[in-house]
Amino acid sequence: MKAYKNLKLLFKKLAHLQYTQKVMMWDEAVVMPEGAGAYRASTVATLDGFIQKTLIKKRTQAWLKDAKAESSALHPWDLANLKWMEKKYQNAVCIPPSLTEKFTKTKIICEQAWRKLRPQNKWSDFLPYLEATFHCAREVAERQAQVLNLKPYDALLDEYAPGFTQASIDQIFSELKVALPPLITAIREKQKTESLLPPQGPFSVAKQKAIGLQVMKSLAFDFNCGRLDSSHHPFCNGIPKDIRITTRYSENEFITSLLGICHETGHALYEQGLPAKWLSQPVGAIHSMAMHESQSLLIEMQVCRSPAYFEFLQPLIQQEFGQGEALTADNLFRLITRVTPSLIRVDADEVTYPLHVIMRYEIEKGLFNGELKLAELPQVWDELMRQYLGISTQGNDKDGVMQDVHWPSGAFGYFPAYTLGRLIAAQFFETFTKMEPHFSREVQKGEFQTLVAWLRKHIHSSASFLSTAELLTLVTGRNLETQPFIQHIQKRYLDKN
Amino acid sequence: MKAYKNLKLLFKKLAHLQYTQKVMMWDEAVVMPEGAGAYRASTVATLDGFIQKTLIKKRTQAWLKDAKAESSALHPWDLANLKWMEKKYQNAVCIPPSLTEKFTKTKIICEQAWRKLRPQNKWSDFLPYLEATFHCAREVAERQAQVLNLKPYDALLDEYAPGFTQASIDQIFSELKVALPPLITAIREKQKTESLLPPQGPFSVAKQKAIGLQVMKSLAFDFNCGRLDSSHHPFCNGIPKDIRITTRYSENEFITSLLGICHETGHALYEQGLPAKWLSQPVGAIHSMAMHESQSLLIEMQVCRSPAYFEFLQPLIQQEFGQGEALTADNLFRLITRVTPSLIRVDADEVTYPLHVIMRYEIEKGLFNGELKLAELPQVWDELMRQYLGISTQGNDKDGVMQDVHWPSGAFGYFPAYTLGRLIAAQFFETFTKMEPHFSREVQKGEFQTLVAWLRKHIHSSASFLSTAELLTLVTGRNLETQPFIQHIQKRYLDKN
Repeated sequence: MKAYKNLKLLFKKLAHLQYTQKVMMWDEAVVMPEGAGAYRASTVATLDGFIQKTLIKKRTQAWLKDAKAESSALHPWDLANLKWMEKKYQNAVCIPPSLTEKFTKTKIICEQAWRKLRPQNKWSDFLPYLEATFHCAREVAERQAQVLNLKPYDALLDEYAPGFTQASIDQIFSELKVALPPLITAIREKQKTESLLPPQGPFSVAKQKAIGLQVMKSLAFDFNCGRLDSSHHPFCNGIPKDIRITTRYSENEFITSLLGICHETGHALYEQGLPAKWLSQPVGAIHSMAMHESQSLLIEMQVCRSPAYFEFLQPLIQQEFGQGEALTADNLFRLITRVTPSLIRVDADEVTYPLHVIMRYEIEKGLFNGELKLAELPQVWDELMRQYLGISTQGNDKDGVMQDVHWPSGAFGYFPAYTLGRLIAAQFFETFTKMEPHFSREVQKGEFQTLVAWLRKHIHSSASFLSTAELLTLVTGRNLETQPFIQHIQKRYLDKN
Repeated sequence: MKAYKNLKLLFKKLAHLQYTQKVMMWDEAVVMPEGAGAYRASTVATLDGFIQKTLIKKRTQAWLKDAKAESSALHPWDLANLKWMEKKYQNAVCIPPSLTEKFTKTKIICEQAWRKLRPQNKWSDFLPYLEATFHCAREVAERQAQVLNLKPYDALLDEYAPGFTQASIDQIFSELKVALPPLITAIREKQKTESLLPPQGPFSVAKQKAIGLQVMKSLAFDFNCGRLDSSHHPFCNGIPKDIRITTRYSENEFITSLLGICHETGHALYEQGLPAKWLSQPVGAIHSMAMHESQSLLIEMQVCRSPAYFEFLQPLIQQEFGQGEALTADNLFRLITRVTPSLIRVDADEVTYPLHVIMRYEIEKGLFNGELKLAELPQVWDELMRQYLGISTQGNDKDGVMQDVHWPSGAFGYFPAYTLGRLIAAQFFETFTKMEPHFSREVQKGEFQTLVAWLRKHIHSSASFLSTAELLTLVTGRNLETQPFIQHIQKRYLDKN
């Protein structure tokens, strides 16, 4: 068992360094003075290089070999841990540390450039940064693909949504591409006659934050081990002991920041619910970004965008912003369920949202399979927007190809995790509400203990022990399906109101 | 030159990791959620261990040997750089990385305990933490002392104030111990008849911060490469590209936070004035904490506690807090120059302050020379306080032995740097004002360009190229003396008003 013990110690030290890296990236996005940007990029590159070199030392390979030889003595969680250790080693050993360093530096610089150039709508100035980042991402993907015996884009999917491939995602997304358009048409027809009152600002940031903190508290966010800040692009970053979420505020409206907080709180609850015993070990970490998004979207979409949730919110909101008719639960619910094709993915309604993701997925496939060039993206983007959502982004790259942080930050292959996570969320929640048919009465009262306890017991505490398919089957009795999501849309948007 | 080039690359990477460590420590003190404390301590310990192991790899020794062999071809700055590299290697190679890790973890946990236990006045609960930290510090000092052929406490002094030893500091401090008491008596006699109006709060934190930011701006603090926050204990941390200062606010009064900002801005200006060309190299770093304190104290004590500075401040303060008589330049200057023996070092006036430092220095000598035990400190503290300042701390350890962050954070040997820095500041400023006899007229108008340019040219840009004695001699024509400080006190407190 000595080899496995050595590996556990190695991965504990690596977890410390990865936590360090996360703090450096949180800091970069939230508090770092701008003039430190380039030096920060070099610094994190050096750190990532150290992490990589430490992981791929020759002794790691020897320990893995020895640990596998004696693995019959290991408990199931240790076996799963060993499997993840080997996977992490294999994914790293094929990448030269110099490439890791270059990729890190390039993508941090690229994201910094994006923050500046997006508001100026300067695609052609931004393109060289994106190209440098893409080239690194592709080289990494190609090297990992060789080891994993996959296509390069499948190697990326394997990182963010292990167990899924282009083949399986094509199948899932094709079902959505069939099911969603008629739903959208029917919903829009139904909503035509509904009246909406847009809330009138300004809504002070301090008051928005006060509501956000109450929302986090009601969802059992542990503030002793986490915090809320604001940043350019909302995110959740950290480890179970120190999990930090961000949102962004506008004084013109408060719903975006609030639902952003609900979403990121879902992410944070997953981390805070991971098994303490396995902290710092691969099997004790979050399973994948697809599973992570399932947790954020279960909270945001299934719970916090429900009519019951707005009944809970109404007094909180009216206490801060007054009692106007625009601030009633009914009106706010109608506002956030209004289905309209729109340019910006993160502001899209729940029903058109998957089409945004499918579009990015198709572009990424084209880029990595060699059918598309980055320089063509504004045109391709415009074409796909017209095709899927009937709107154009011609000449408006800031709300088109430049709208998301993912590509600038090198996270090619991430997008499908949103929609896979959305489907997983719907499937989990369907199972949960079958067991707790009166849960919406608890939501009305702002009581989420039943749900959080269920998520902790069935999902969070599983960490990386089971695959997505195994966990879904264990919890819901079947592998991933699109039906629970489609039925949820049908029910929330068409069945009554 | 290959060996020296390798060393430069190594130290560049180490500088990245040290910057990382600094961000982790800033984060720990300013934003980290409390529940992450223990894990953060382990994390920074791992990071410090990596830095240490990377520095003391066998190849470093070989490179140093080869670089020294070819050093005749090096320029003076490179020669000085090589000398610092060797010193850093020697100071590290004698410490087992496991001790480094243990020390880091122990002192971070100790500081976290101090933050909790100090307000509760719980010395006996705190003592075990402090003992663990002291034992690590002593072991490090003993190992370095052997290599340097010094006494252990001299090895610590060599870290914070290179060039100074117990022998030289004893001499300097004995001069102060003779000169200060009669000055204090005379000043207190003179001030007896002066009237003081204590400003009446509350003073909103937002307004205090607004004044602080203006003060920083006027002193040419570069906000593109730095920021201001608040923390438990004010500090300055970072690198030239990313320098962060903190202060602490109380609504009862605003002068502490404001002068804290002036002090830390002096530190920051030093970092921001370091030569960009030598960023990441040892010779391009700040020379020592003694020199660092000279820069903070020159700004705080010589400039910002002058009558002229309060003439500049008066409109800023009155704009935020109204026009009361208590807020006139005259009254505020009288307030901050009121000489009174007091318990808390950081709140002490300029004249009694060195006695606080001398007291800590004598205790540290006793601890490291084996004449004192930590458990005896409350009693020893009380005795020394009575002896030097005529006040007792019996039963009041929170304002006695537990008042400072230095020992909890493992920084034994740091205190003398404050008073050495204070003397250096006075000597530099005396030279400056001989060249710029009308500088106080610029201060009245909030114009500090002449001073900042002079500091940049003569001090900041020298970084670690010269020793303290060399730099003092170059700039002021002589080695360190106590006279400029004594004369400054005489002039500010006794000559007129």
